[in-house]
Amino acid sequence: MPEHQTVAIVGVGLIGGSIGKALRERKLADKVIGIGRREETLKKAKAAGAVDHTTTDLKEGISEADLIVLATPVQTIVRTMDEVASACRKSAWVTDAGSTKEHIVQSAEKAFRDAGPYFVGSHPLAGDHRTGPEHARADLFEGRTVVVTPTDKSDQKAISRITDFWQSLGAKVETMTPAEHDQRIAVVSHLPHLVAAALASATPEKLLPLAASGWRDTTRIASGDPQLWQEIFATNRASALEALETFEHKLAELKAALGNSDDARLKANLEGAKRIRDALGN
Amino acid sequence: MPEHQTVAIVGVGLIGGSIGKALRERKLADKVIGIGRREETLKKAKAAGAVDHTTTDLKEGISEADLIVLATPVQTIVRTMDEVASACRKSAWVTDAGSTKEHIVQSAEKAFRDAGPYFVGSHPLAGDHRTGPEHARADLFEGRTVVVTPTDKSDQKAISRITDFWQSLGAKVETMTPAEHDQRIAVVSHLPHLVAAALASATPEKLLPLAASGWRDTTRIASGDPQLWQEIFATNRASALEALETFEHKLAELKAALGNSDDARLKANLEGAKRIRDALGN
Repeated sequence: MPEHQTVAIVGVGLIGGSIGKALRERKLADKVIGIGRREETLKKAKAAGAVDHTTTDLKEGISEADLIVLATPVQTIVRTMDEVASACRKSAWVTDAGSTKEHIVQSAEKAFRDAGPYFVGSHPLAGDHRTGPEHARADLFEGRTVVVTPTDKSDQKAISRITDFWQSLGAKVETMTPAEHDQRIAVVSHLPHLVAAALASATPEKLLPLAASGWRDTTRIASGDPQLWQEIFATNRASALEALETFEHKLAELKAALGNSDDARLKANLEGAKRIRDALGN
Repeated sequence: MPEHQTVAIVGVGLIGGSIGKALRERKLADKVIGIGRREETLKKAKAAGAVDHTTTDLKEGISEADLIVLATPVQTIVRTMDEVASACRKSAWVTDAGSTKEHIVQSAEKAFRDAGPYFVGSHPLAGDHRTGPEHARADLFEGRTVVVTPTDKSDQKAISRITDFWQSLGAKVETMTPAEHDQRIAVVSHLPHLVAAALASATPEKLLPLAASGWRDTTRIASGDPQLWQEIFATNRASALEALETFEHKLAELKAALGNSDDARLKANLEGAKRIRDALGN
């Protein structure tokens, strides 16, 4: 018996498309409806086997859904929240896959103020610098962490249902508040993006033939969609700036050791960095 | 007919071991001699099929060699240069695989001042954050760039022989002066290392469970050997600092856009970074 009779996915890019594929391959839904603004993307999602039906009409697409997943860019999620709240079934479970949580959860709590439907925010820590439904993969969430961000206003059953949903796709769920999420993810995701972008920008294109795997790895995420990332930063400005200041401090330590020919200190700094990196594994 | 009858490789880590493996698999040498300080590493190199013979005696190991490749850490290369020059055959070709070139080439030109042997510096832009002969691969140089750094004192035949040597292992050769090399590699290799180290250091270990592929990629090289890297920086201080300043300027631009809520400027910066990253390919 499918866990969710009808699932509506708003935004069928890499994340939305992968959710659809995973649901369909694991036979967890009777019907997966893909909702998007562009016919072309919807067609690709269908061709990729990510959805059963598609529509560009948000209200129509979500009206019969038992579970709704908002998988558009963060600012689109915020902008469409009122419409989602007004058009969905009163019994629907709603979550999202946005990369920042405070703005989204606040907008949801405003829109879903009255009894049901039940919204709990999520952020799957899975992704790729390649976007679009053509890169969707049914195993994208397997073994990956999904952060679920209830607040003290969240319905307990909704928290369980959303947690079960991600686990049914193979993910591990970590639970924290939206504010904790945004602060922590600023360090491990938003800061690396700023750093990778600055590093790519600091490289004259004529030197690219000399770039080896170090440069490739370190700048890879700078390939991400600038619009998506601008929205992520716009909805997590303070935490991103705070993380950036910690980074600047660490970089200044390395710079001082380098500039002062303090090789012992430089090595100690590199050892400290290696210890943290090695703690994660490859 | 083998191109080089006897090749001596001083330092049989990842790079030295891979050179040996490539020479042996491609049948480019009658004999490959691995020279190192630690018996254990030499045993691993032999077990990995990287060398035919091993010795801890530098003078003995290089005495009969037609080609000598110095593949130890940069400061060891500099320190052993006089001994190499005095013990090698007068007709031997000598190169190295060090990550910086000015210090090494200067020490070689001092040590090899008189007629032959013929030294030309090299830097294979191939490597891995994993070190040691157990990770050596015969195909490590295939399709990769090796920078060869002659000076106006270099022997033309030596330049040709060293260029041919790397090409025979499957590499593409780029030629530039040692100073040009060090300045350019500071941007595409040494700067990324500093940035990756600062980023790893800026991450509290308790947040690692939230680290996804972005953090993983961006910090991967921070796993590199701190001693090796300290030596690389010590022999390329000025260029590394110059590259770091360019990076700081780019990061400050991103920070200002973020802090001033200038989303258009932030997006333009991210677009510029993406353009450069995409120019390289995946």
